[in-house]
Amino acid sequence: MRLPGIGPKTAQRLAFYVLTMEEDDVLDLSKALVRAKRDLHQCSLCGNITDQDPCYICSDKGRDRSVICVVQDTKDLMAMERTREYNGLYHVLHGAISPIEGVGPEDLRIPDLLKRLEDETVQELILATNPNIEGEATAMYLSRLIKPFGLKVTRIAHGLPVGGDLEYADEVTLTKALEGRREV
Amino acid sequence: MRLPGIGPKTAQRLAFYVLTMEEDDVLDLSKALVRAKRDLHQCSLCGNITDQDPCYICSDKGRDRSVICVVQDTKDLMAMERTREYNGLYHVLHGAISPIEGVGPEDLRIPDLLKRLEDETVQELILATNPNIEGEATAMYLSRLIKPFGLKVTRIAHGLPVGGDLEYADEVTLTKALEGRREV
Repeated sequence: MRLPGIGPKTAQRLAFYVLTMEEDDVLDLSKALVRAKRDLHQCSLCGNITDQDPCYICSDKGRDRSVICVVQDTKDLMAMERTREYNGLYHVLHGAISPIEGVGPEDLRIPDLLKRLEDETVQELILATNPNIEGEATAMYLSRLIKPFGLKVTRIAHGLPVGGDLEYADEVTLTKALEGRREV
Repeated sequence: MRLPGIGPKTAQRLAFYVLTMEEDDVLDLSKALVRAKRDLHQCSLCGNITDQDPCYICSDKGRDRSVICVVQDTKDLMAMERTREYNGLYHVLHGAISPIEGVGPEDLRIPDLLKRLEDETVQELILATNPNIEGEATAMYLSRLIKPFGLKVTRIAHGLPVGGDLEYADEVTLTKALEGRREV
């Protein structure tokens, strides 16, 4: 019940299911839990969750090391990876600037990012924080901080989601889609 | 029950409600129905639904007559108007190219559009058809048809809706958001 999204009934169902499982499977599950907690940690370069250091993305020689995509969360990194369109590196901030929740720039992995920009041959930084208030504030903060480094700073596009409908789009998204129109 | 979205129960509820209404209100409603059907028609220029001709947008002197925004539907025009950001003219196609539903370019208000491009001082055509298969096909068709006219043809941006979350964005939208990134 202390796990997220597990209420009393689901907890009971899961507990009873464990009783019907093979002993080996239960042992495997128990070991997997301990191993996940013990072996997984943040990549010292990009902040991705990994069992090796640097992570499989940072140590992949086939990746384009001139681009870094900045995301808020490891889940966002996974979403970007699922597109199979991006072949650069990542930097996971582990959060976004949010005065309401008391999260400031000093709580994010920004110093690590600045260090990477000095060390590596980065030419473009893609700001892929979420398109909401916190994400935009973080993108704004980062772009001001990093522009003096003289590298290209880009922001992912705002607009209509593919498969959507103009009629049901909210005003702000439609305005952004109009502002961001491109010549065809 | 023959109206869209009205099932047997709602139909019965509405019918009984009419019986409790003041007679004047019932008369007003009945007249409004007839008037809507009789007086409203398509604007001969842009295809918007209107009770005058040309419609209030086409006859508005304060509008920028150098831009035409092409939409599929009057509802899409209304969505664009709600943004209060667009001050140009419109052209309503009344549909989109869809081989499955047997809708070809000849079923849309495309000849009227071409005539407007010849007559008026249009400099930019914004293709704001829906970001789905039919809308994209229509935008593609129109851009090929109109490019030879030598005017600027743009497409509204595809990307993440404002207020959304990277984690829950579908792969195609995320790919488009990445492709469409812009320098900040």
